[in-house]
Amino acid sequence: MNAAVIAVGSEMLGPTRVDTNSLKVTALLELFGIPLVRKSVVADLLDELADEISHSLEHCDILITSGGLGPTEDDLTREALVKALGLEVAVDHAIIEKLEQRFAARGWKMPEVNKKQANVFPGHTTLQNDRGTAPGFHLEVGGKHVWVFPGVPGELEWMLKTYMEPWLESVSGGRTRHRRVLKIAGLGESAVEEKLKPYYTAHPEPLTILASPGAVELHLIFDSTDEIATREREMLDIFGVRCFGFDDDTLEGVVGRLLTERGETLSTAESCTGGLLAQRITDVAGSSAYFMSGVVSYTAKVKTDVVGVDAEVIRANGEVSEPVAVALAQGIRQRFGTTYGVGITGIAGPTGGTPEKPVGTVHIAAASADRVEHRKLFWPGTRSHVRWFSTQSALDLLRRFILQQ
Amino acid sequence: MNAAVIAVGSEMLGPTRVDTNSLKVTALLELFGIPLVRKSVVADLLDELADEISHSLEHCDILITSGGLGPTEDDLTREALVKALGLEVAVDHAIIEKLEQRFAARGWKMPEVNKKQANVFPGHTTLQNDRGTAPGFHLEVGGKHVWVFPGVPGELEWMLKTYMEPWLESVSGGRTRHRRVLKIAGLGESAVEEKLKPYYTAHPEPLTILASPGAVELHLIFDSTDEIATREREMLDIFGVRCFGFDDDTLEGVVGRLLTERGETLSTAESCTGGLLAQRITDVAGSSAYFMSGVVSYTAKVKTDVVGVDAEVIRANGEVSEPVAVALAQGIRQRFGTTYGVGITGIAGPTGGTPEKPVGTVHIAAASADRVEHRKLFWPGTRSHVRWFSTQSALDLLRRFILQQ
Repeated sequence: MNAAVIAVGSEMLGPTRVDTNSLKVTALLELFGIPLVRKSVVADLLDELADEISHSLEHCDILITSGGLGPTEDDLTREALVKALGLEVAVDHAIIEKLEQRFAARGWKMPEVNKKQANVFPGHTTLQNDRGTAPGFHLEVGGKHVWVFPGVPGELEWMLKTYMEPWLESVSGGRTRHRRVLKIAGLGESAVEEKLKPYYTAHPEPLTILASPGAVELHLIFDSTDEIATREREMLDIFGVRCFGFDDDTLEGVVGRLLTERGETLSTAESCTGGLLAQRITDVAGSSAYFMSGVVSYTAKVKTDVVGVDAEVIRANGEVSEPVAVALAQGIRQRFGTTYGVGITGIAGPTGGTPEKPVGTVHIAAASADRVEHRKLFWPGTRSHVRWFSTQSALDLLRRFILQQ
Repeated sequence: MNAAVIAVGSEMLGPTRVDTNSLKVTALLELFGIPLVRKSVVADLLDELADEISHSLEHCDILITSGGLGPTEDDLTREALVKALGLEVAVDHAIIEKLEQRFAARGWKMPEVNKKQANVFPGHTTLQNDRGTAPGFHLEVGGKHVWVFPGVPGELEWMLKTYMEPWLESVSGGRTRHRRVLKIAGLGESAVEEKLKPYYTAHPEPLTILASPGAVELHLIFDSTDEIATREREMLDIFGVRCFGFDDDTLEGVVGRLLTERGETLSTAESCTGGLLAQRITDVAGSSAYFMSGVVSYTAKVKTDVVGVDAEVIRANGEVSEPVAVALAQGIRQRFGTTYGVGITGIAGPTGGTPEKPVGTVHIAAASADRVEHRKLFWPGTRSHVRWFSTQSALDLLRRFILQQ
């Protein structure tokens, strides 16, 4: 059994956007050991799209399409399926009603064009979309399976999980492959590789190393869960506390879990990261239980007036310095009465650097009632890079600070 | 004249890598007004690849392939071209010599497998590769053009510039295309489409509508800059102040430009968006000139103590209410002495909703010394959705608030 993917949309044929939906699809297929033989991106043109559907089906058992199910005139996936596969079309009035309710809930009137999204294929399965307006489809044609999903990433992911994964489980007789991802912070890709060298020599099985900004992932893919558990233990022996989590874990999620378990609280005072630290922490559902508040202190005055940093400390050391990072962490902790405080001060660029403190210089600190830890960082790269890596380091510093508490 | 792209390589069919070479190709094609009708990624399998070459050539005048020209066994693009197009193969001994010299220069002996890279197609053009070992090809077959490039990005880019761009110039007679993007806030994709219906009827030229989260883009692509200027004026007549910018503009960037031009300043007090608003504002280089500070007020205590919201206002209306959003905007403006203040309070979910105030309810406000504006929003969707759309609306409210000042 093999598969092919078609991403529909002229916008992915320009110089600015790539299809990333197919990555979600292939990750799921991989769990069931189903290889992808091809993927393609096709313009919003009826004939091209219909032809691509026919052509892809000649090469695969399972075809997955994403996109082209919206309400506008250039959303043509339904029409192309009709043309390529000779399907009948009918209007599902229940879908129109649901769409109208959805718009009404926001106090809007449904635009007439949206009615197109109620066109379904009798004899085939319509997949209700709880995340958006476009239903998907599961078609069986000539012994082959065509899965038709919307292109909005969140909607596609939900549909993969809700409809396609259970189906794959049923046709494959259970999962054949298992994946476990270990996430490492505080080491670059080549440092991780270096540490793994002796292990590689002893174990020639492939282990995928994937670098993401500020973290490195180790992907273990094996047929048996026992095998994965063994490999995981071996990896943990090598990386220890630097392994911050597994699979979908994020640093902010891991920190949140630690704080929740301990019934502890957190506040933040950040300058160069401009709210990114607070934003990441509060991106975690349930974070209001432990995140009390944050201050984005873009001026010295706010650092002294709101966070309580001694003006003399700023005068003597400059705003970007270890004492100010420490004072921010301690000050915000006291100001908001939390278990921990985190402070960040630095120069994100592109301007504002000096020979002594070049762009990319960042000080981070974590404080509790009786302890404080500080790190000086230097990040080359763009403003966004400096900001992202700084919050990544601050979250990892906090994580290890909490673990030592 | 139109084009298609094939990216060759099984590694791009897994869950971790996408083809980005095609973006370089399409950026070049776009300058000459040559549309891309399809692109595909094919595994390193001879039959699949040969079939894909034949199939793509049925749909385009120019086919560009990248990858599969290396020396290893799974580099099969040459073999697939022979199979698909019935080409002859010959060994170019001059290439073998050059390869051997290249290896010798680094003190290495050329591996035998590299000799494969000296296989060329008599009667067609071999493209010397000054950046690597794999030559490319320009084939003319049945009136169509096939450009065969290596997959290493630096080598591909050099070949595009060195060989393909001059060729495109010569065949197109120097004809170039221009692109202008208009960005619309405060209207969904289908509402934009509704507004454009009368225009569409009068102007059948294609106008691409692209929805990105919280904004809609209108892409105008025409041969002459005059034509683009005319269309742009027509679009501005239709969308007026809802068009917030052009091309690479972002809402936060546009707000920053307005504030810089006017020498005005800004502060923010946000709850449910958790720092995302401050983070987006400070993502703009130079924002320290106008963004004074922000508070992430995740508790009522911080709203009263730091931002100066009257505790009675919170008690009487609840934290998620119009009066609290207004008090946050006005309070933070006064606290930090800025021209404008923005307040956001809401329920991002997934928990915390009530029948009267369901998850997704958000109040935003903008205040100056003598004026205040408020909007109540309701966003369906995930926590991230609610947060993103809320900041998008707050930035747009602020933009229009400043324009009216």
